[in-house]
Amino acid sequence: MSHQEFMDQAHAEAMKGLAEGGLPIGAVLIENGKVVARGHNKRIQDGNPVAHGEMDCLTNAGRRASYRNTVMYTTLSPCMMCSGTIIQFKIPEVVIGEAENFDGNIAFLENNGVKVTLMNDPNCIKMMKEFIEENPTLWNEDIAED
Amino acid sequence: MSHQEFMDQAHAEAMKGLAEGGLPIGAVLIENGKVVARGHNKRIQDGNPVAHGEMDCLTNAGRRASYRNTVMYTTLSPCMMCSGTIIQFKIPEVVIGEAENFDGNIAFLENNGVKVTLMNDPNCIKMMKEFIEENPTLWNEDIAED
Repeated sequence: MSHQEFMDQAHAEAMKGLAEGGLPIGAVLIENGKVVARGHNKRIQDGNPVAHGEMDCLTNAGRRASYRNTVMYTTLSPCMMCSGTIIQFKIPEVVIGEAENFDGNIAFLENNGVKVTLMNDPNCIKMMKEFIEENPTLWNEDIAED
Repeated sequence: MSHQEFMDQAHAEAMKGLAEGGLPIGAVLIENGKVVARGHNKRIQDGNPVAHGEMDCLTNAGRRASYRNTVMYTTLSPCMMCSGTIIQFKIPEVVIGEAENFDGNIAFLENNGVKVTLMNDPNCIKMMKEFIEENPTLWNEDIAED
């Protein structure tokens, strides 16, 4: 599968979150070229502030001895929690849908040896832009801005 | 309450985790001088690799607009996931039981404006040391060493 096909799956996860009344941010974890876990932001649905899309995806992936052969696809540039997690778990590669609506921590990931690809995917940009415009308070809570 | 009294509560959380068959790492979140949430590592109990003690404590604390008046107490120096989370959530202060068994990311926290106090608490050191000696494989999985 291509970058675009995996990102479309992360986007579909994000849209699932939106349909549940949550933030439209999704992620998929690939291992040896196959999707092994999917997740989306569940802060609102679960009342859980650490349930960002990447964290939910890693929760769904369950316990594993190594992330050596994995790639994380995420619709939005990872925050410091999710970036720290990617580094801690030694996930070697992250593909990011967009960094326009939230610039995240791409340099921090790269400085810690993570290969980062930024797709500038128009679907991801549009989805997040519309959500932030319509829900500025929920979005600011998600990234702990006050 | 004193640093020692709050750390004893984090230690009690860790011991709860040990009694459940999990890793003995615990945390409490203080807001305006009162315990508002407790948590402990539940990787084994919940099969969830992101459920470190600090993350479980923040999950239990639920959604909040701000962490401005909070202090996190944790029995063991935070890993990169938990450190990134502390920074992302703008928790201004962290009190760490010990950094002998895992040195964590104290400089990273401090460089990002977090006030860090390292207690070198003998109870925390002994608890973790004994666990690692008896369960090296579980411990290495927890910090993603392979």
